[in-house]
Amino acid sequence: MARREETEQETEASPPTATLGVGMVGYAFMGAAHSQGWRTAGHVFDLPVRPALAAICGRDRAAVEAAAARHGWAAAETDWRALIARDDVQLVDICTPGDSHAEIAIAALEAGKHVLCEKPLANTVAEAEAMAEAAARAAARGQVAMVGFNYRKVPALTYARTMIEDGRLGALRHVRATYLQDWLVDPESPLTWRLDRERAGSGALGDLGAHIVDLAQYLAGEPLVGVSAVSETFVRERPVLAGAAAGLTGAADGTARGAVTVDDATLFTGRLASGALASFEATRMAAGRKNALRLEINGELGSIAFDLERLNELSFHDHTEPATSAGFRRILVTEPQHPYLEAWWPPGHGLGYEHTFVHQAHDVVRTITEGRAPVPSFADGLQVQRVLAAVEESAAKNSVHTPVPF
Amino acid sequence: MARREETEQETEASPPTATLGVGMVGYAFMGAAHSQGWRTAGHVFDLPVRPALAAICGRDRAAVEAAAARHGWAAAETDWRALIARDDVQLVDICTPGDSHAEIAIAALEAGKHVLCEKPLANTVAEAEAMAEAAARAAARGQVAMVGFNYRKVPALTYARTMIEDGRLGALRHVRATYLQDWLVDPESPLTWRLDRERAGSGALGDLGAHIVDLAQYLAGEPLVGVSAVSETFVRERPVLAGAAAGLTGAADGTARGAVTVDDATLFTGRLASGALASFEATRMAAGRKNALRLEINGELGSIAFDLERLNELSFHDHTEPATSAGFRRILVTEPQHPYLEAWWPPGHGLGYEHTFVHQAHDVVRTITEGRAPVPSFADGLQVQRVLAAVEESAAKNSVHTPVPF
Amino acid sequence: MARREETEQETEASPPTATLGVGMVGYAFMGAAHSQGWRTAGHVFDLPVRPALAAICGRDRAAVEAAAARHGWAAAETDWRALIARDDVQLVDICTPGDSHAEIAIAALEAGKHVLCEKPLANTVAEAEAMAEAAARAAARGQVAMVGFNYRKVPALTYARTMIEDGRLGALRHVRATYLQDWLVDPESPLTWRLDRERAGSGALGDLGAHIVDLAQYLAGEPLVGVSAVSETFVRERPVLAGAAAGLTGAADGTARGAVTVDDATLFTGRLASGALASFEATRMAAGRKNALRLEINGELGSIAFDLERLNELSFHDHTEPATSAGFRRILVTEPQHPYLEAWWPPGHGLGYEHTFVHQAHDVVRTITEGRAPVPSFADGLQVQRVLAAVEESAAKNSVHTPVPF
Amino acid sequence: MARREETEQETEASPPTATLGVGMVGYAFMGAAHSQGWRTAGHVFDLPVRPALAAICGRDRAAVEAAAARHGWAAAETDWRALIARDDVQLVDICTPGDSHAEIAIAALEAGKHVLCEKPLANTVAEAEAMAEAAARAAARGQVAMVGFNYRKVPALTYARTMIEDGRLGALRHVRATYLQDWLVDPESPLTWRLDRERAGSGALGDLGAHIVDLAQYLAGEPLVGVSAVSETFVRERPVLAGAAAGLTGAADGTARGAVTVDDATLFTGRLASGALASFEATRMAAGRKNALRLEINGELGSIAFDLERLNELSFHDHTEPATSAGFRRILVTEPQHPYLEAWWPPGHGLGYEHTFVHQAHDVVRTITEGRAPVPSFADGLQVQRVLAAVEESAAKNSVHTPVPF
Repeated sequence: MARREETEQETEASPPTATLGVGMVGYAFMGAAHSQGWRTAGHVFDLPVRPALAAICGRDRAAVEAAAARHGWAAAETDWRALIARDDVQLVDICTPGDSHAEIAIAALEAGKHVLCEKPLANTVAEAEAMAEAAARAAARGQVAMVGFNYRKVPALTYARTMIEDGRLGALRHVRATYLQDWLVDPESPLTWRLDRERAGSGALGDLGAHIVDLAQYLAGEPLVGVSAVSETFVRERPVLAGAAAGLTGAADGTARGAVTVDDATLFTGRLASGALASFEATRMAAGRKNALRLEINGELGSIAFDLERLNELSFHDHTEPATSAGFRRILVTEPQHPYLEAWWPPGHGLGYEHTFVHQAHDVVRTITEGRAPVPSFADGLQVQRVLAAVEESAAKNSVHTPVPF
Repeated sequence: MARREETEQETEASPPTATLGVGMVGYAFMGAAHSQGWRTAGHVFDLPVRPALAAICGRDRAAVEAAAARHGWAAAETDWRALIARDDVQLVDICTPGDSHAEIAIAALEAGKHVLCEKPLANTVAEAEAMAEAAARAAARGQVAMVGFNYRKVPALTYARTMIEDGRLGALRHVRATYLQDWLVDPESPLTWRLDRERAGSGALGDLGAHIVDLAQYLAGEPLVGVSAVSETFVRERPVLAGAAAGLTGAADGTARGAVTVDDATLFTGRLASGALASFEATRMAAGRKNALRLEINGELGSIAFDLERLNELSFHDHTEPATSAGFRRILVTEPQHPYLEAWWPPGHGLGYEHTFVHQAHDVVRTITEGRAPVPSFADGLQVQRVLAAVEESAAKNSVHTPVPF
Repeated sequence: MARREETEQETEASPPTATLGVGMVGYAFMGAAHSQGWRTAGHVFDLPVRPALAAICGRDRAAVEAAAARHGWAAAETDWRALIARDDVQLVDICTPGDSHAEIAIAALEAGKHVLCEKPLANTVAEAEAMAEAAARAAARGQVAMVGFNYRKVPALTYARTMIEDGRLGALRHVRATYLQDWLVDPESPLTWRLDRERAGSGALGDLGAHIVDLAQYLAGEPLVGVSAVSETFVRERPVLAGAAAGLTGAADGTARGAVTVDDATLFTGRLASGALASFEATRMAAGRKNALRLEINGELGSIAFDLERLNELSFHDHTEPATSAGFRRILVTEPQHPYLEAWWPPGHGLGYEHTFVHQAHDVVRTITEGRAPVPSFADGLQVQRVLAAVEESAAKNSVHTPVPF
Repeated sequence: MARREETEQETEASPPTATLGVGMVGYAFMGAAHSQGWRTAGHVFDLPVRPALAAICGRDRAAVEAAAARHGWAAAETDWRALIARDDVQLVDICTPGDSHAEIAIAALEAGKHVLCEKPLANTVAEAEAMAEAAARAAARGQVAMVGFNYRKVPALTYARTMIEDGRLGALRHVRATYLQDWLVDPESPLTWRLDRERAGSGALGDLGAHIVDLAQYLAGEPLVGVSAVSETFVRERPVLAGAAAGLTGAADGTARGAVTVDDATLFTGRLASGALASFEATRMAAGRKNALRLEINGELGSIAFDLERLNELSFHDHTEPATSAGFRRILVTEPQHPYLEAWWPPGHGLGYEHTFVHQAHDVVRTITEGRAPVPSFADGLQVQRVLAAVEESAAKNSVHTPVPF
């Protein structure tokens, strides 16, 4: 540690006593991550109101009560309608699978609550449209609806957006985005609900591709207007876990196999509104790549590059420099002047994955209290959904270029 | 995000209701970091007792009350003796400057409390010896005393220790350690108490060098037995901040300058007990290096390398492989089987600086509840102090090789 | 330098006196690179016959004589038919633009000469077919015809092919290839013949894309069977250099502009015969990327990655290792057991770009003297041509998936 | 390949017919590398006179004739005095072990020949002094004497020197240099003459340390004025190869062992004339490090970093930039404006180790023909020798700081 700025005299203002009551639906992995965000934001940032972990909701009473105790929630509910109805809940945070997002989000908005909804916004464009409409109506009443594209809250990416907005890259030419993981490389990895189209919507596309589509549009500041896609399921049957049931191949004694109905990998090219070319790859079959969300954007005046496995770093090439001394520089995005960083640690003392959820919680609070436009909004989530639908359509139609409405 | 393991059915056990009452002295930068550790550990790890943030202590009542509110402490005290005396405090966490460590730690131990003390353990070997003796007496009564060398709790380094312990590196030949920062490069950077020998003990040596000495001895599993050192203060006078007083050069109108009385940089070589050679460099004058704690250890069978600016990664070279396919591999130390990782996020979803304090809190609790030997102990802190003293002696004696007692 | 293996006693066998007379057509950049290859191979490798730089050919007598003197050729010709006819020429090395390859290569083969032809093999599939047929006829007479995909001769890539052939990657899932340069980023960069479709055939696709298509098929050991492509010319008019003539926009006083008729960038996805998915990007508009030919191949058992800007390195991930110690390792492909390396310098003393031409010269000689099958052959060059044609067809047809005959 | 600048019209001037006759003594590894340099320089650079490989000299007639044929030398000699006496030799290139440098170099200079002498200049300070004196006398007669610190000719390092000279780093604070190899890690690696003090002078210190001392002084533009050192021989006995004789331990049947009488590793700290601190490590026991000559220099305004394993790259941090966008940038030192690069390949098409010898040959020719001061001179070689002697003295005297005369 390098204690370089602290002094005991550095008196901080007392934090506020006002709170924003949060009610969370779902308590699995995303629930844990969101809990950490809500618990921490008020202790780190100067916020006008502090998030209060009012109640958590799940179907199994024992499980949800254990989760409440574990993650620090004051109460537990087993019916999400009851959660929405609670007086101590001003914001509903939806961490359930995608097929339930629309119903819960719309109900919460209509009940006058703010909403934060995990990505992808929905499993279909129709649901997403209904949600975006509900959000627009609620906005008129002063309510906030945000979608959980948390990687926008990685300081290096928030800062990259600022650089692009400031014109440091000039006219954009290329966006290059991959999101590579490897947890399905082993063909004996079991068949879970995430490999079932009915429940998960899609595979790598919705899980990983949604993130890079959102980031590409966010960073570029413009939508994708068309795509050409190819998709593959390399391992078409996988072992069924004991207890699972329908549609099995083979015996029920542990050698049973069931069909994988989602994509292992989806690749697509596309065009942004400005004419820049983009490429995307989402896969869970890239051996050795654990969380390789990699982005590069090339413009007429410069380029940026990013790798989520090194999330405190941003690479930047300034093409206006003399060629002899130009090169991609590794910016450690840990300076107090960088987005979100003033509240954290000294330069070089990096942040991690979960900080995106703390920043998200911070942004939700500020958006509500300052009456800002939500970033990312349900409209942003809808636009991503439209891209994903066009990708699926193109993949089904021999990769033909497919326009994205916007 | 890649939600790949979660299921709503994954019921967690309810956490315990028993708590470990923590009382913290000091609330500057380290206080914030420790608070984050205490607040989070019980929500992430399965612990038999949960840390409770009982009370925080500082001299200025308004300031300490603001800090208590900000960081989540239940009470505030202005006298550390009162803090120690509280019934709801079972562990005293000392985050004050080094010159007060000995008095507070010994008093707390004699009052029957467990102690966690920030590094360096003390400003002098004599103080550190008294503390280690007090810790030994307290251990006989079942009390725990640990020193806050938090970088031992970076999973990549904990795992590196395991690899070395398991013999993956064979007989050690070289330890190469630097800790480079750059916040004093600007000669107009002001004179703070950290540049005053009376208060800070030493400069880069105690602040940065202490960490790499501890890590070298921890990872190698053996002490340094002698050192040869050189030290420098490049900028010998710096501007005095308004309000400061004695020993100034020049006018009092903002152009006043005062003497820097600690080292800007200290370099030393050394030998480990096994005969391996080591080199160390601690500096705050390495332009562009923000937090470059870099370690490399070479052994007869392999090597490891680490850089704190990329703390989720460990480089490992296995020298027993065929030469054609051998090379330093980049291990992402984010697998569930890695130290501390089972409680955190999926592979590739990295941790940050502050997680070392969560892990430290976890270790303190487990050490107390399981009756384990504390790691790192006050004896470890004392040994570091002896090395630092030998370094200063060598630097003062024309770099002559100076033995380290152990 | 680390002189570690040399001894004055290490007597080398005397090199042979037999030679292979080389006649080279063209003497621009590629001519210089090939000359360096021919000059050096016999001094570095133990070859049964040594290349002799017999004659060089170009249209301008003064220029070709200067080039001969500069690059070390014994004679100069101004008519390529005369070059082919020379008795001291056993091999014709074709370094001219693509539109002349077919005529020269076929004539040389029919005259009984061996041929090395720069890539791409031709500007059209029809030409390439004729060349492959001529090569097949010549092979029956014991003649060798090779195409200059020199990057196959980068030791790291030759070694990567060996690893894949040996099954270290298992069943392939993904090939990911980009070739990024930035010399057309500036819109004021002038219009040269390379931006003229009539002469250059295509732009980034033929120049850069040809290399990555060849490497993908070479490394995977299987052909691409279909592609879906998109192409773009971002800067459609560029300044015409003084002296140029037809089709100008604007005045003739230096502000004249002419149309760019080739692609600035082409992206495509594809499928290999085994079902693996591939992606390709060739561009000259990626600011800051100078020569970024990057390849990654993921298989069921492991992955490799490569970057031409660091051509002495190969990254390899062994997915059969325990997850805790697995990771991409950086193999320095400079060990004596690596391809071509026994003849060169000690480990870690890297090679450069031009060594690919020395290795190519070595391979040509060995292929001739040992009666091996040429690698890469004209048939390989033809297959690349078919892929490029399918890419252009797909780009013209709204990116629809277009099969590649093979 | 990216043929981007060539045009067939780009006529080159015819090269000169005048030559510089080179006579080389020694023909092992260094001889091969120097031969490549002499053979290539005149074909790549525009030189007023071209090196001619006149004669090579070694003691064993058959071996030296084979070497002459292999490496392209016109004649062979077995007596270095005869080589010096040849009329067709204007420059003597000395590639023998260090103990013979002084005698040959002085004789050549006194015979009126130019001299290039491999590093280290000599095995003792006294020899080096005699050589520097002979060089000074010869300089008055218009002769050139250079020492073969070839790494100064790596374009990235030549360019780094320019940056420092231009003040881009400001006042220097730190020089950090390591040269790590691993070819002695295996304790069964045999005892060669290089491990024999009588013949080799020293071990890692003279072989590797000499390079980093020279580079530190060259880049900083100032000498080391004092050092403090520690040295170690980890493996004190090694197997003797069949045929070797005296001083053996154990049986003569292959289990015989002999004493290693040089250092496996030497570490030292030092001060430059300006007061900057420096650290050095030279070792052949760093498992996994093949040729890791790494340098970092920190100044008040910026820093540079370099790694010989990636010799086409220079890292540069500009500390005058805003903190938010500053960072170490990776400059590919392959632009035509970079030192030596105009003669080579397009940007990003890297060079290798052997190019340092081509550049050295270029510099020798230019130094002679333009009457420049030689860089590096025998005086520079002498200064390195003085540092090495001070290092050995300090290591022998308990690491005490030992001044370096200059």
